[in-house]
Amino acid sequence: MVESAEKTEDVEGEGLTAEELRDAWPVLDSEERLEGFHLLPRDDAEDFFLELSSRGQASVLLGMPTRERRAWLRLLPPDDVADLCAEFPPDGRGELCSLLDDPTRREVNALLAYAEDEAGGLMNPRFARARPEMTVEEAIRYVRRQAQDKLETIYYTYVLDHEQRLLGVVSFRELLLAPGDKLVRDVMHEDVITVPEEMDQEAVARIIAQHDILAVPVVDAERRVKGIVTVDDVVDVVETEATEDIQKIGGTVALDAPYMQTSVAQMIKKRAGWLMVLLVGQMFTISALSLYQEQFATAIVLVTFLPMIISSGGNSGSQATTLVIRAMALGQVRLRDSWRIVRRELVSGLFLGGLLALLGLARIVVGEWLAHEYGSFYLDLGLAVGISLLAVVMLGTLTGALLPLLLRALRFDPASASAPMVATMLDLSGVLIYFNVARVVLAGKLL
Amino acid sequence: MVESAEKTEDVEGEGLTAEELRDAWPVLDSEERLEGFHLLPRDDAEDFFLELSSRGQASVLLGMPTRERRAWLRLLPPDDVADLCAEFPPDGRGELCSLLDDPTRREVNALLAYAEDEAGGLMNPRFARARPEMTVEEAIRYVRRQAQDKLETIYYTYVLDHEQRLLGVVSFRELLLAPGDKLVRDVMHEDVITVPEEMDQEAVARIIAQHDILAVPVVDAERRVKGIVTVDDVVDVVETEATEDIQKIGGTVALDAPYMQTSVAQMIKKRAGWLMVLLVGQMFTISALSLYQEQFATAIVLVTFLPMIISSGGNSGSQATTLVIRAMALGQVRLRDSWRIVRRELVSGLFLGGLLALLGLARIVVGEWLAHEYGSFYLDLGLAVGISLLAVVMLGTLTGALLPLLLRALRFDPASASAPMVATMLDLSGVLIYFNVARVVLAGKLL
Repeated sequence: MVESAEKTEDVEGEGLTAEELRDAWPVLDSEERLEGFHLLPRDDAEDFFLELSSRGQASVLLGMPTRERRAWLRLLPPDDVADLCAEFPPDGRGELCSLLDDPTRREVNALLAYAEDEAGGLMNPRFARARPEMTVEEAIRYVRRQAQDKLETIYYTYVLDHEQRLLGVVSFRELLLAPGDKLVRDVMHEDVITVPEEMDQEAVARIIAQHDILAVPVVDAERRVKGIVTVDDVVDVVETEATEDIQKIGGTVALDAPYMQTSVAQMIKKRAGWLMVLLVGQMFTISALSLYQEQFATAIVLVTFLPMIISSGGNSGSQATTLVIRAMALGQVRLRDSWRIVRRELVSGLFLGGLLALLGLARIVVGEWLAHEYGSFYLDLGLAVGISLLAVVMLGTLTGALLPLLLRALRFDPASASAPMVATMLDLSGVLIYFNVARVVLAGKLL
Repeated sequence: MVESAEKTEDVEGEGLTAEELRDAWPVLDSEERLEGFHLLPRDDAEDFFLELSSRGQASVLLGMPTRERRAWLRLLPPDDVADLCAEFPPDGRGELCSLLDDPTRREVNALLAYAEDEAGGLMNPRFARARPEMTVEEAIRYVRRQAQDKLETIYYTYVLDHEQRLLGVVSFRELLLAPGDKLVRDVMHEDVITVPEEMDQEAVARIIAQHDILAVPVVDAERRVKGIVTVDDVVDVVETEATEDIQKIGGTVALDAPYMQTSVAQMIKKRAGWLMVLLVGQMFTISALSLYQEQFATAIVLVTFLPMIISSGGNSGSQATTLVIRAMALGQVRLRDSWRIVRRELVSGLFLGGLLALLGLARIVVGEWLAHEYGSFYLDLGLAVGISLLAVVMLGTLTGALLPLLLRALRFDPASASAPMVATMLDLSGVLIYFNVARVVLAGKLL
């Protein structure tokens, strides 16, 4: 972070507010962050710390002496501690864990065994529970007692049998509204929506969003509840997954940190790979063009339309690929819909390509009328350009739509079908289509 | 929806489950949907109805007789009714409203006055409230009573004065844990995070996500609470906004409905506009190429590298533009960071362009060694291609990064800087750079 010098004065002044620090945060280095953090009143500092990302919390803790670290660490629920550990340099993790009390350390270690992007890695192991044979009044008292122990939410109480297996769920509101002497078993809902521990976090997010619930329990194969994923965790997941998809669509490997916090060297590394692959892809275009060198030497005017034709393929392909990638990410489109997607895109491509073909033809006709740019065969030239546009756009929509489906079928991430990748594929096909159409249409005329 | 025939059998069979209907939903027409809906057991049907999008709820209600409609409509909280009204054909809205009871109708009409994408259009006017002079025990009883009246959440209780102005907030959990005889005023938090009625929904979502809260109160200029926005509404907002951005980045006008529910005609309309604008943009490339026609007629080999050079500019520009658009959407980057972004992108462009320049040069050297493709001036040709790649990639990263910033400065949506738009701008600049570099480097040699 060499670029942060101009911001430092704001932070070193006395009487810093959380708002000011939050604004300056992205451009501060870790020393300045810790300094600013220490200038906040204790209450504000606590709120500020809890709102930070795990990465931000790690950067603050790293600069602190051990004694101070312990106090801050104990503010966090176990799932947040686990996330923080994952952001810590590996050699510091053991020491960090030694600062926790025994039960929390056990919970954190259990959470760290899960992959970060699955339900188990996202869940909080502390949740409100009750037994089916309790009365409503007993359950309310029991949940109130549990609430003292840093529960993330008391909104849902999960009803468990003696082996911790899930029997049902009842919302705290329902407990409050029910007669106090009724049994929990008689007010609970037995059809609980659950997710398995290894479910991908995107799928968990979709389930919570679709069912409009505030939390979903994570269960193992024996239906024992291991923890809950709450809706506020899911907001972050939805946002992060969309960010990764957008970056991939743009042809970058997904960044690990916000744009401004990513060093320029990291940024170059994340972008160079695809750019080089795409450039190598373009070498096929070079070879293809070499094949047609003699052809366009005799009708050099053909070359002037080349970028328009190949780019139109790339543009229509980029539209189709982003639409299909997003529809797949939202679960609106599945592999078995492929055939219907192909039909939709073919019809779209036919109309869109036809439209562009007419525009391209018009350009040539007008150019000829106004400036006699193209000579007596201008209509044939227009026909060649128009047919090529139609064919390239149709191929573009089709390639753009099929590529993410194909990637999914091969178990790759559909979002890897970036706009630049589709455009590069269409550059090559565009050259082949254009010069072959020209060869047929203009035979004995321009060629 | 002509394509739904193959799915119909599943739905017409008896004993349909909600899961089966949910799966088939996207491909059913509205008659089939209503039919399937009526086959569900009443309880499942209620859950299913509540989980549907407003659009889906509207399509179900539209097919029902008035009497049946009333029962379903009354299941919904006022903010959901307002959303549903917005999806209803305008001439049916009055009739729909007449089915509501008086207080709900007033609430719905008040909500309909807000724009759909601002805090006021997203909020629920029913929330738990208490007075500062109540005891904790009284407040708990009062909230329990309010809970019977379809509150969306009892998680937070907002403490209001006699003019409905916000004094503080206390979570239900805090009420439960506090001594019953304490006053609400002494347990509440006075530093409440609030949002104004006209705040954009994306900004509201960011505030809820950033502060990790379950709901935020919407207040007017006098700090009177008009309603609350809950975190589950925000998940939908985050998802919808990301979808719109992805579609725009791909060069499509954002769709109003899921991909499969959008008719092919609609789809063509949403895509044709940009494709035609981009094609017209390409006409400048045609004119530019016409200018250099004589030049490349004498060195036809130059043309074979043209697509590679112009596409590399588009690719690097597409990377930069998607990274900056997303960083802006997440609030990580603001207009005042422009200068730092420019510096970052210039450095990145220098390295990335240098890398591609070396690859391009290598391609020509290897081509000459292996097949004598380029003759005695091959090193000069390689130099011209390399310099052009470097310049085009640097211009690409810079244009891609600056375009969304410029759009924001002009108060347009930064996401309008689509990958195809950047690519088209780079096609023209690429042609100009390439042929001018070639003119200088190859003067007296190939040219």
